[in-house]
Parts: sequence; C-alpha cells; structure tokens
Amino acid sequence: MENKIYIVGMGPGREEMMTKEAVQALEQADVIIGYPLYLNLLGERFKAKKQLGTPMRQERERCRLCFEEAKKGLRTALVCSGDAGIYGMASLMHEVGKDYPQTELVVIPGVTAASSGAAILGAPIGDDFCVISLSDLLTPWEKIEKRLVAAAAGDFAIVIYNPSSRRRKDYLFRACNILLSQIEKERVCGFVENIGRDGCHAQICTLEELCEKEVNMFTTVFIGSSQTEIINGKLVTKRGYAMDRNAEQKEGA
Amino acid sequence: MENKIYIVGMGPGREEMMTKEAVQALEQADVIIGYPLYLNLLGERFKAKKQLGTPMRQERERCRLCFEEAKKGLRTALVCSGDAGIYGMASLMHEVGKDYPQTELVVIPGVTAASSGAAILGAPIGDDFCVISLSDLLTPWEKIEKRLVAAAAGDFAIVIYNPSSRRRKDYLFRACNILLSQIEKERVCGFVENIGRDGCHAQICTLEELCEKEVNMFTTVFIGSSQTEIINGKLVTKRGYAMDRNAEQKEGA
Repeated sequence: MENKIYIVGMGPGREEMMTKEAVQALEQADVIIGYPLYLNLLGERFKAKKQLGTPMRQERERCRLCFEEAKKGLRTALVCSGDAGIYGMASLMHEVGKDYPQTELVVIPGVTAASSGAAILGAPIGDDFCVISLSDLLTPWEKIEKRLVAAAAGDFAIVIYNPSSRRRKDYLFRACNILLSQIEKERVCGFVENIGRDGCHAQICTLEELCEKEVNMFTTVFIGSSQTEIINGKLVTKRGYAMDRNAEQKEGA
Repeated sequence: MENKIYIVGMGPGREEMMTKEAVQALEQADVIIGYPLYLNLLGERFKAKKQLGTPMRQERERCRLCFEEAKKGLRTALVCSGDAGIYGMASLMHEVGKDYPQTELVVIPGVTAASSGAAILGAPIGDDFCVISLSDLLTPWEKIEKRLVAAAAGDFAIVIYNPSSRRRKDYLFRACNILLSQIEKERVCGFVENIGRDGCHAQICTLEELCEKEVNMFTTVFIGSSQTEIINGKLVTKRGYAMDRNAEQKEGA
C-alpha cells in the first residue's frame, strides 16, 4: 500500500472519551478532515494542523478529499463523532476507496452513543439490543417502520439514533406510535441530549410520555425491553443473573 | 453520596484502545476489581495496585466486593472488557446497588466488540444492526431463537457475542441454521477472534460457510444485511449515499 488514511471515531466529543490510539492518530496526522462541527470539538492543540471540512450533504466529497490529500503524501485522518463504523464515514470511505486501490484504510473504533448514552442512563443495553436510525435520507421510511416492528417483536432494547432534525420534527412521535402498537405504553424509556458535551441532559420516561417529547438532533433515545426497569433512578436492563446464579458455568462479563 | 465506584469499560484489551477517562479511573483507584483474565490484560503499572478478582459464576460476589471495598473508603474501580454496559457488569452493579444506596455508580463507557470487530472487518454495521448473545445461561434459548428470527425479518446486520464456549460448541451452528431458514445462504458474514489481543484473526465467509466454522469464546461474529457486500476484501454495509447524494439535506456522519 502506498499510503494510509486513519478513519477515527472520536467518541462523544470530550478528548477524555477518545481512545489513546485515536488521539495518537490525530497527533501524527498532517491533515485532519471532517464535518466542521466535529473539527470544532477537537482540542486546541489540533487547531494548528491543516484542517479541511465539507458541509452536510457532501460526505462523498469529504471522502474524495481524504484520498486526494493522502495521495499528496500527507498523513491523513478523517474524524467522525462516536464510532466511525456506526453511521459514521467508514462505510462510505470503503465504497469511495474502490477508486483508490493504493490507499489502505485503517478504522480506529470509538465509543458510540449507544454506549455513552447508556452509561449516563444506567445500563439499558445490558442485554440484546437493536440500533436504528430514524433518518430516512439514506433508508426508506417503510424499512425503518419494518425494523421498529421487528425490534419490538424480538423484545430487544432499542437505541434510536438521529431521532429528529429540523426537517423531521415528528419522526420520534411516528416511531413511538409504531412501537405503541406492539408494546405496552408503560414501557420504560430514556433519552440523553448532548452526550459528553456542554448541556448534557438525561431523562427517563414511559413510552407513552416519550411520544410527546421534543428532542434535538444530538439526542440518543433508549426504549427498554420487557426486562428493563428503573432502579434508584437509573434505567437498567437485567440479564437474569439472579435466576441463574447457581448455573453450572457462567460466561464472560 | 458517601462514595463512588467506577465501572470501567476497558475496550478489547490493549491500553491504546482504552479511553483516557478509563485509564485515569484506574490510575486513581486504590483497588481494581475484575474477572482475573481482564485484570491480567491491564498494563504492568496497574499491577502494583490492590487487585481483587472472583471467577466466572461469581459475578454477584464480585459486585458485593466492590461495594464492600468502597465502604472502607477505598477508591474502587471494576473493570469489564469492551463496554461495561453491553453484556458487562453495569447492569448487575445497579441491581446489587439497591442494598448500598449511599454509593454512587459511575459507568465509564468503552469500545465494545461490535465496534472494534467491525473496524477490522471493514464497516459491517454502518447501517441499522442488532446485537445478540448466544449464551443461554442468562437468556432462555427459545428467546435467542426468537430474536435471531426477528433480526432477520428486520433485515438488520447482526452482531453475535458469545458465539461459543466449551459447553456450547454447536451454538453458532444452531444460530446459523435458524438464520438460513430466513435469509439466503450466500449472505456475506465475517468473524474476528481475539480483537485487540495477541492472535487477532479475521475472516470473511458466506452464511453457509459460517455454519461450519469452529470459533472460540473470544470471537465476535457479524452477519451482513441485504445491503452488505465485499469491497476490496472488506465487509461493508452501505447506507445508500449513492442513491441519495442529491437529497435535499443530509444528516450527521
């Protein structure tokens, strides 16, 4: 391989929540590329570096920019919020990379909002769960509906990314209504806004109450499974250790 | 609150893959508690600290140990591999914590195997996905089957944790057979053994081939969705950017 591009998951935003290898990849980079909001979240010491961004809607152009910079021989890092592989740029980079076979892509994983939001709420995804984005720019709404129904049918805890935007104010309401046709309205839920950033705020509520919430686009929503309950004000999905404490063999935790 | 316990997700194992706040919590701890295998993965500089472990099957005792150490006034950290909230100890700690209302639990999220395994394989969970554990010590097998069927019905990419153990050698085979009744045998899949540790090994195969694989308990398995393909030897789930590149407004990546 002629050169490498590091696709870096920066976690929720604060540098303390980045992995050491993510920080190192940025420190060693000649150029850091990303959506401008995420470049702004990077610490002061990265501001001295060459930084390039493209706005929303220009993800493909952002990818090409990475490959072109790498071609010049510059050590190139692309930053994504959360984990680069979960609704991040890793997928599109591999796709665009078809045209640049001489460039190796190294994905550096990060803490995704399912994990960082869960940590604040308690332990809502301590057992099997689904992750669903409500953005219908990349997935037809009918498919999102079908996935919500399937997730409820499987009694998964559900994590919802991109629950809202300027253009999609009622999407969380629509998703909750689909879930209400499948599960009881008292089901415990929660959401966290601005995880790991200024103005971080978490709230626990029922599914019925969640329907009426207005959340912003920097919010991650959690719908409990049938095993989720509120313990000391925290949202916790039990794995049934109590039931099995005398089982013959227990596995990794 | 009288005292705090830090429940620390250490990521796959290598310290470079821990977040800075996770490393700091361990550095500041007076006592580090965990499953002995995970204590062993910690760097040399943590060996000088008081370390306590309980074997498998004694997760509840491990939790009580944390609360008892914290009660003595010791700064206590509990380590889990991956993310503490995803099949980790966060859920059980909150449950056991009912008996210790004076102790605050702080969960420090980490990089879970879904993210770290995906980074090695390419970008298999770039779109909606489910996470399912095949361990039936804590969940009845019938429920696991139901979730596999629901995940296939929703056309999710699927991440399988705990695919195998000494006692459950044929569980991945059983799971694949359930999936084969729902989706085509050519569906692209992959798995990664020993992520972020010595002997890390990744492989891509079809669902039919996956049926015949013998994997160890330190393996994470990925089943593609209908949108997953192999690009330059990597497993990539597309989000449909190509289709939508002229959409009116694109959202965060």
